[in-house]
Amino acid sequence: MYKKIYVLPLFLLLLVSCKKTDNVTTTNPKDSTETVATSSDPLPSWNDGTLKTAIIDYVSKVTKEGSADFIPVESRIATFDNDGTLWAEKPYVQELFAFYRVKKMVEANPALAQKQPFKAVVEKDKTFFEKGGDKALIELVAATHTGMTEDEFEASTKEFLAEAKYPGKNVPLKQIRYQPQLELLNYLRANGFKTFIVTGGTIELVRAISADFYGIPKEQVVGTSFKYKFDDATNSIKREPALDLLDDKEGKPVGIQLHIGQRPVFACGNEGGAGDLAMLRYSQGSKYPSFQMLVNHNDSIREYSYQEKDNLSLNTAAKYKYHVISVKDDWKKVFPDK
Amino acid sequence: MYKKIYVLPLFLLLLVSCKKTDNVTTTNPKDSTETVATSSDPLPSWNDGTLKTAIIDYVSKVTKEGSADFIPVESRIATFDNDGTLWAEKPYVQELFAFYRVKKMVEANPALAQKQPFKAVVEKDKTFFEKGGDKALIELVAATHTGMTEDEFEASTKEFLAEAKYPGKNVPLKQIRYQPQLELLNYLRANGFKTFIVTGGTIELVRAISADFYGIPKEQVVGTSFKYKFDDATNSIKREPALDLLDDKEGKPVGIQLHIGQRPVFACGNEGGAGDLAMLRYSQGSKYPSFQMLVNHNDSIREYSYQEKDNLSLNTAAKYKYHVISVKDDWKKVFPDK
Repeated sequence: MYKKIYVLPLFLLLLVSCKKTDNVTTTNPKDSTETVATSSDPLPSWNDGTLKTAIIDYVSKVTKEGSADFIPVESRIATFDNDGTLWAEKPYVQELFAFYRVKKMVEANPALAQKQPFKAVVEKDKTFFEKGGDKALIELVAATHTGMTEDEFEASTKEFLAEAKYPGKNVPLKQIRYQPQLELLNYLRANGFKTFIVTGGTIELVRAISADFYGIPKEQVVGTSFKYKFDDATNSIKREPALDLLDDKEGKPVGIQLHIGQRPVFACGNEGGAGDLAMLRYSQGSKYPSFQMLVNHNDSIREYSYQEKDNLSLNTAAKYKYHVISVKDDWKKVFPDK
Repeated sequence: MYKKIYVLPLFLLLLVSCKKTDNVTTTNPKDSTETVATSSDPLPSWNDGTLKTAIIDYVSKVTKEGSADFIPVESRIATFDNDGTLWAEKPYVQELFAFYRVKKMVEANPALAQKQPFKAVVEKDKTFFEKGGDKALIELVAATHTGMTEDEFEASTKEFLAEAKYPGKNVPLKQIRYQPQLELLNYLRANGFKTFIVTGGTIELVRAISADFYGIPKEQVVGTSFKYKFDDATNSIKREPALDLLDDKEGKPVGIQLHIGQRPVFACGNEGGAGDLAMLRYSQGSKYPSFQMLVNHNDSIREYSYQEKDNLSLNTAAKYKYHVISVKDDWKKVFPDK
């Protein structure tokens, strides 16, 4: 198979600070100290209100046998974006990982520090990437994420995850997950839903944490993928420095169709980069009753506050009647204690 | 994302008669009339012998907690080829489907019968495809398998499956499944394995039958895929007449890595077109104890007898010590009664 693939600029934005947002406020975490309810409430970290009620009503009606709204188990597909939907995205963990890889690679081969794009990362030279644009960024992704076997890549991600602390908060990465979403994933699974992550991040990085962080097995992660090549002589797969699928925006329905093969009836994304709108729209086209949600990052005290300049995601949510999660108002507790 | 994809000749061979085999003998089905054991034997349609014992020994040892051979549930990944491994491949069902599509399309638009490649199919003109080579074949695939939404394609496959009878045997397609393999799939699942189909056939066609025929959900089918495009205006996905992944030979480990994200510990393919060797090799590279099997189609009485001219699959099985299923000797019963 011969493919000529031009790598897209969108993915590369992962490696620079978010340009499409404003009003970014970073604060230290102030997790709620309220006691988690031990009652039968399946979503104790969600404040009581119209959204929580809507979620529970939806799940109840589509799982009730004999109901006109009943969805057979095999079609109870729930998809969640990751960055900004299941965990924080200020900055992207993918970006931290790329910088970690640069550090490790320069340690192993100090001469790299004099070579671009490593030099720019080592010297924190943002202008290099601003001036070099896509070309410079793809060099960085290619140099840090590809050219190794899958086994080597997995070992590298495990090391990174064991060491990494989230900037500004100084907590392990597990503590930037959103507690209400962890409860929602469990609640959906308890009701026969199969939960998937559909992320703009690279598929292997998210697979490295999906089971431990979210209870989602590797094969239920859909993500941005590089082109693979199997080498019989070494019996291994290598990734080549060319994108196969950019699983963002219009790429998300494509990734869903390829990996899952049917429309999700439940889908959740976030505003911030307008990356999830196509997924929510695709979900709404299901022949079954469906439910779409969008996280609105409006909590500068407990999480972050950032909005798209054109408010595209929130405007689209209003247009198509997607549910909007107000982090400030709908979440009693944002982050888990550990 | 811009991809320039040249469609491969290999996939297109699906649409012509198998060129790599000889000694093809087709017979009417003569299913065993032996009563299926109601004992605790998990594989009643397998004859007792070294292979059946090896399967049961393997599953027992890797599922025994505390054993050095123990495999955690999340890594109990089993992959099966479809054509010639889970059901018969003389001819490919994919080929029947392409011809069915031509028939339907010509009924809807009779003028097509005068237009190639439809004309060649209607007139059973094999020389057209022999002379036209890849170009003629891709025209046929493009005309019959793409250019419609996923929902339209699924409706078409359902119609086809409801009507189709298998040539030479005159039975519904369900009756060309291999009974011993159905038992093996169940046995593996009962022991915590997640079962996947990894097929050279097109992913949607196999997904249309995977749950009903094999108890395997859509999202656990890896197959040959066309390039998708999401259209926001119609909220639908269309397939374009360009291959995305040819899930055959070296494409199988690639499809496995992309869709599953780890090596299968149990893999089963068949000789006939040497399409499964890379998958078996990839499986054998697992860090866990692994098990590879290859179906040898040597039963001209109950199924078919066909071998590769160069015996590549059987030679490779001998080299790497893959288990070989002799249809003639290892299977007590080949096809299910219904």
